[in-house]
Amino acid sequence: MRAVFHDVDPLGLRIVPFRAPSEREAAHDFLWRVHAQAPMAGELAIFNRSHYEDVLVPRVLKSIDDAECERRYRHIRNFESLLADSGTTIVKCFLHISKDEQRERLQARIDDPTKHWKFDVSDLDARKLWSDYEKAYENLLGATSTEMAPWYIIPADSKTHRNVMVAELLRRTMQGMKLEFPPAKELLKGVKVE
Amino acid sequence: MRAVFHDVDPLGLRIVPFRAPSEREAAHDFLWRVHAQAPMAGELAIFNRSHYEDVLVPRVLKSIDDAECERRYRHIRNFESLLADSGTTIVKCFLHISKDEQRERLQARIDDPTKHWKFDVSDLDARKLWSDYEKAYENLLGATSTEMAPWYIIPADSKTHRNVMVAELLRRTMQGMKLEFPPAKELLKGVKVE
Repeated sequence: MRAVFHDVDPLGLRIVPFRAPSEREAAHDFLWRVHAQAPMAGELAIFNRSHYEDVLVPRVLKSIDDAECERRYRHIRNFESLLADSGTTIVKCFLHISKDEQRERLQARIDDPTKHWKFDVSDLDARKLWSDYEKAYENLLGATSTEMAPWYIIPADSKTHRNVMVAELLRRTMQGMKLEFPPAKELLKGVKVE
Repeated sequence: MRAVFHDVDPLGLRIVPFRAPSEREAAHDFLWRVHAQAPMAGELAIFNRSHYEDVLVPRVLKSIDDAECERRYRHIRNFESLLADSGTTIVKCFLHISKDEQRERLQARIDDPTKHWKFDVSDLDARKLWSDYEKAYENLLGATSTEMAPWYIIPADSKTHRNVMVAELLRRTMQGMKLEFPPAKELLKGVKVE
């Protein structure tokens, strides 16, 4: 995150992390807390995790069935189309690491006491379900990659290459928005401040 | 409002009035502020005005074109289907008064100084566009009455009849939800408090 955004003025940036839903959040539809955090005009919001968690873990652990998952895909497409129609540019990055790379990262978190805070035993349970997650990701990417809100799959075993790809993607996206300063004011032409 | 809800415990009730959008609200999609106010599980929320304002005044005053209005209808249907899929029961009431009744109500607000606060000159401008509003309402009702979130047109010239109809509609709706107390606990059977 820092590697990509360190030169962006924090005043124009909002990082939104999504954790397990709170009791209040869980008492609403799954998009409620996400919509509330949607950026306003002129704002850049970075979602760290998102509503896509709600079609991954519950799907793999079978706490929702296929029909409910398809409904959620539809609600996600509708929601993103609302944002896009309202002028929001959406960039979705899937940071894809290999199973070997994951082993190394998890092992490093176990071996290095200063990384223990990043580690949770549930990560090992999820790792055992690797191929189920693979399938869930495949379905998700196919069902929710739209013209208005496409997915970008970023090979992420190398953090350096990952960062360059994400930064370049954002640079191109922002250039494509053709942002300009507000038009100059004729009245100010030649005015001298005394 | 009071006539229908005076016997409902205010602890379980939330009235949400929608006024002209604030600067912050207007910097988001038109459903952003509405979604934020959606009731959570177990809560009863009453919207006084709603997202339907956004397909009425702007449509009649032509600040949005037909294509944008159709897009908004679609976003409204999608949004309400998300709420319904998540367990929210939606009841939409259109309180319909005649042009004659409106003249009398507006005149009363002008003649009675204690009602001046309810009156705004823009009401007279809107009245001149009665048939345009009629058409906009017709389109709106046709485009957004769905099985999951139907419109109810309430004849409202008589406030008494209006109130009875709305109260009865809500009574039937809540009965249809088949709400029950949580199951009794076997462990409590026969326990005496000393």
